[in-house]
Amino acid sequence: MLLKVKSLKLSAGRPVAILHAKTARHLDVHVDERVEIIKSKTKKTIAVMDTALLDREDEIVLSEEIIKKLKLKEGDFVDVSTARRPVSVLYIRKKLDGKKLNKKEIFEIVRGIVENRLTEAEIAYFVSAAYKEGMSLEEMANLTRAIKETGNQLGLKNKIIADKHGIGGVAGNRTTPLVVSICAAAGLVMPKTSSRAITSAGGTADVIETIAKVEFGIEELRGIIKKTNACLVWGGALGLAPADDKLIQVERLLHLDPESQIVASILAKKLSVGATHVILDIPYGKFTKVTKKQAMRLEKIFSSLAKIFKIKLKVILKREEQPIGNGIGPVMEMRDVISVLQQKKDMPKDLEKRSLLLSSHLLELTGKARKGEGKKIAEQLLKSGKAYKKFLEIITAQQGRIKSLRLAKLKKDIRARKSGIIKEINGKDLMAIARTAGAPADKVAGLYLYKHCKEKIARGEKLLTIYAENKDKLRNAEQLYKELLPIKIKK
Amino acid sequence: MLLKVKSLKLSAGRPVAILHAKTARHLDVHVDERVEIIKSKTKKTIAVMDTALLDREDEIVLSEEIIKKLKLKEGDFVDVSTARRPVSVLYIRKKLDGKKLNKKEIFEIVRGIVENRLTEAEIAYFVSAAYKEGMSLEEMANLTRAIKETGNQLGLKNKIIADKHGIGGVAGNRTTPLVVSICAAAGLVMPKTSSRAITSAGGTADVIETIAKVEFGIEELRGIIKKTNACLVWGGALGLAPADDKLIQVERLLHLDPESQIVASILAKKLSVGATHVILDIPYGKFTKVTKKQAMRLEKIFSSLAKIFKIKLKVILKREEQPIGNGIGPVMEMRDVISVLQQKKDMPKDLEKRSLLLSSHLLELTGKARKGEGKKIAEQLLKSGKAYKKFLEIITAQQGRIKSLRLAKLKKDIRARKSGIIKEINGKDLMAIARTAGAPADKVAGLYLYKHCKEKIARGEKLLTIYAENKDKLRNAEQLYKELLPIKIKK
Repeated sequence: MLLKVKSLKLSAGRPVAILHAKTARHLDVHVDERVEIIKSKTKKTIAVMDTALLDREDEIVLSEEIIKKLKLKEGDFVDVSTARRPVSVLYIRKKLDGKKLNKKEIFEIVRGIVENRLTEAEIAYFVSAAYKEGMSLEEMANLTRAIKETGNQLGLKNKIIADKHGIGGVAGNRTTPLVVSICAAAGLVMPKTSSRAITSAGGTADVIETIAKVEFGIEELRGIIKKTNACLVWGGALGLAPADDKLIQVERLLHLDPESQIVASILAKKLSVGATHVILDIPYGKFTKVTKKQAMRLEKIFSSLAKIFKIKLKVILKREEQPIGNGIGPVMEMRDVISVLQQKKDMPKDLEKRSLLLSSHLLELTGKARKGEGKKIAEQLLKSGKAYKKFLEIITAQQGRIKSLRLAKLKKDIRARKSGIIKEINGKDLMAIARTAGAPADKVAGLYLYKHCKEKIARGEKLLTIYAENKDKLRNAEQLYKELLPIKIKK
Repeated sequence: MLLKVKSLKLSAGRPVAILHAKTARHLDVHVDERVEIIKSKTKKTIAVMDTALLDREDEIVLSEEIIKKLKLKEGDFVDVSTARRPVSVLYIRKKLDGKKLNKKEIFEIVRGIVENRLTEAEIAYFVSAAYKEGMSLEEMANLTRAIKETGNQLGLKNKIIADKHGIGGVAGNRTTPLVVSICAAAGLVMPKTSSRAITSAGGTADVIETIAKVEFGIEELRGIIKKTNACLVWGGALGLAPADDKLIQVERLLHLDPESQIVASILAKKLSVGATHVILDIPYGKFTKVTKKQAMRLEKIFSSLAKIFKIKLKVILKREEQPIGNGIGPVMEMRDVISVLQQKKDMPKDLEKRSLLLSSHLLELTGKARKGEGKKIAEQLLKSGKAYKKFLEIITAQQGRIKSLRLAKLKKDIRARKSGIIKEINGKDLMAIARTAGAPADKVAGLYLYKHCKEKIARGEKLLTIYAENKDKLRNAEQLYKELLPIKIKK
C-alpha cells in the first residue's frame, strides 16, 4: 500500500511507524507487529507499528531512524506491507514451551534484542520463559557468549586481567573501590566497570561519581587503564552488553531476576573486559538478594561456566545479616570508603575487613600472593597508604579529585525508643528509606547508621540520621522508617 | 523536576511522555516505566515513559491524550516525577510465581489493561503466567466477569437471548450466517457478534462485510435487533470486551492461546450481549485448533462456568478432518452461504448439514423445538425459504443487499497430478494459501475447492482454483500451494 510520509521529528530509539487504525486493519497488521517500508528495491527497512489518530488514512508517520536510513522527506511515498515475524519469536515460544535452545537460536534472540527487532512484549516473553523454565549450563554459556559478542570488547592484551563482582543486596557493601585500589596497588590490571543503582540506594558508579567522572568511551577507558592499571567506571556507557541492558529494563517491570540472566549478565561483562581471574562476592542472609541455597547453586553454576570459558573464578559465599559500613547513599558511602583508605580512627571496621577478605582472595587467585599470604599483603597495601595513592591516581585519571563531601541540606535523627541491644537491622528496608530520601539521584541524600548488631544502645541515643535535600523527601523517608521499623532492639 | 512541554502532535492511543535519556536517568525512570506529570494539585496524570534524542534535557514531549487532559500548551512547565508501579504488576508477578489470584486482583489487572496503565510487556508477563500456570475455574470466572464488566453491555431485556460461537480452525466452516438466519426465523432473539480473521482467511465479520455493513455502535445495533430479532455484526466496533482485544493483540506476538484466555474471552462476549442460551461449536481433528483431548477439557470448563453464570450452554464436539463448503475467503464463503440459503442444487451439502446440526441444538436448548424435533424444524425453516427471508431482513437492516458477487481479477486452476481418491485435505494450509492470495483484506481473493475427501479424481481434473487481485499474490499463493501440497490423493 502506497502511503505518504510524515516525519515524527523524533528519534524514538528504534524504527517506529505510525499508521491510521483503519490503514493498519487493511494491512492486517496490529500494534507492536512489524511493517516493511519500501522506498525502492534496495532501500527498505522494518519498523514496529503503532496506530494513532492520524488525520488521514493514506499517511504514515515515521521516526527519524527511518527517515534517515531511507533518505526520505515529508510528502514522499513509500510502499508499506506486513513484515514477517522475526524467526527469533519462534525460538522464544519454543523456550516458553519448555524446550532447550541451541547456540544459533540463542544468538538469534540476543541479536533480535540488540538490533531492536524484538519488541518489549516479546522480550518479556523471553524473560518469562527463562524465569519459568530455567536454562541448562550449555544454554547459559551460549547466552553469555551471545551477550558478550553483540557488545563492545575492551581488548586489553595483558596476560592477567583481574575483576571482581558483587551480586549486591547488602546495604553499604561498597568494597569495590577498596578492592580495586588494593589490588591495582599490588600491580594487578583491574578494569572495573560497575552499574548504577537498579533497586538499591546507590551502585558503585553512583558512588564514584560523587568525586569523579564515570562515563567514558572505550578509547578513553583504555587510556585510563594504561595510566593507572585500573579504573572505576560506569559499565553502561561502554556498550559492553547492550542486550543485557535491554533485558534488565524489561525485567525491572516485574522485578524479575531469572538465574540464567543473572549469570550470563555478570559473566558476559567480565569476558568483555577480558577478565582472566574473577572474584565473585555472593553474600546471603535474611535480607540479601539470595538465600544460602541459591547462593550455593550460583557458586556451582559459575564454577562450571568458568571452566567452559577457561577463566579462574572464585566465589566468596558469606553470610551477611546487616548493612556494612555506616553510610547508605552515594556520598555517605564514599565518605566511608575514603575513611578506610585514609585509615581514619573512626573508619567502619566491617567495611575494611570485608574489602581485605575479597582483596586477599583475588591476590592469591592471580598469584600476586602465595596461598595464605593474601591477607597480609592486602593489609600492608592498605595500611602503608599505597592503596590510597592508587585510588587517587585512578580518581585523577577519571578527572576527579578528593574534596570534602557536602551532606544534604536537611537531616533528621532517629533515636532509640528503648535501651537494649541491637538485635536486627533490615538493610533492605534501610535502602528503601534512603531511596525515599532521594538517593541515588540526590547524591547527598541517604542515611548514616550509628550502631550495628549486638551493640548496646541507650534509650534516646541516635540510631541513625536521615539526610535529604527537601522537606518532602525527609518527611517521606522518616514516615517510611516509622512504618517499617527496620531496627529491632532487644532488652 | 520542572520540564517544558512540547507536543507530539499525535494521539498515541495512550498517554505517552518522551524524555531526554539523561533526564530519564536523573529521574531514575526507565523506558516503559511510568512518570507522573503534574500541572497543578488537581491536574495530574500518569504516562508511560519513552526516551528519544531530544534537543534539550529540560523538555518533555507529550502525546495529545495528556495535552488535552491537562489542558496544556507548548512552552508550559510541568512537574515530572517517577510514578509508583500500578499494584496490578504485583498481582501479575504473583500469578507468574504460580499463586492463585482472587477476584479483586484479577479485576485490578483487567482494569489496568483497559485503562492503559499496563504496558504491552507487562501484559505479556500476564499472558505468560496464564499460559504457564493455567487458571482455576474460579479465576476463569473472575477473568470472565472482569472482561465483561470493563466493557459495554448490549442491555436487551428479552427473557431468552440465543447465541452461538465457533472456536474456529476449520476452513470454510461458515455456519454462523445460516444458524442465525434459521434460529431468528424460528423467532429467537440472536444478537450475533463475530470477529474478523485473526489467523484465518476470513472471520464471519469479513464474510458478512462483502454484502452489508458490520460496524455499528451499541445504539444502532439495538435498532437492528428490534427490527429483525438478530444481527450479524463485527464485535470489535462495540467495545464489548476491550481487555480481550488488548490481550489478543499481545498473544498474537507469540501465537499464544492460553486456555483461560480462550474461555474468558468467549464467555465474556456472550454475557455482554446478555446471552442466556449458547451453543459452542468445538470441532477437533488433525488440522483444527484443538485436539480431541483439549476439546473435551474445554467442554468441561465451559459447562462448569455456564453453571456459575446461570446460562444454558451446550458444546458440540465433532471431529472435522477437512474444510467445509467449497469457498475459502470472504466472497467465496458468502457465495456458499447464499447458495445454501437459496437451496441451490449445487450448494455445499456439508455446510448445510453442519448448520442444521447446530441450529437444531440451539432450537432444542431454547425450547423452540422439543427434544429430537430440532432438526426437522430447522430443515423446514431452511427449505421453506423462511431462513433466507430472515437473512435478507438482517442484511437490509445492516444497510446491505444481495448482489452478484464479483470474483477476483485473476485466477489459477490447480489440477490433480494423478488419478485416485482424495485422501487428505489440510485446511490449515489452504487458509494460509488463501491469505497469501490476499484474503481477507482482498475480499474477492481466496480459493474454490472442487473435491472433498473420499471423492474420486482423474489426473488433470481441477482440484481447486486460486483467486487473487494481482499477479504477485497469485504467484505467491500458487508457489505456497506447491510447497505445502495440502491435498493428498491415494491411487
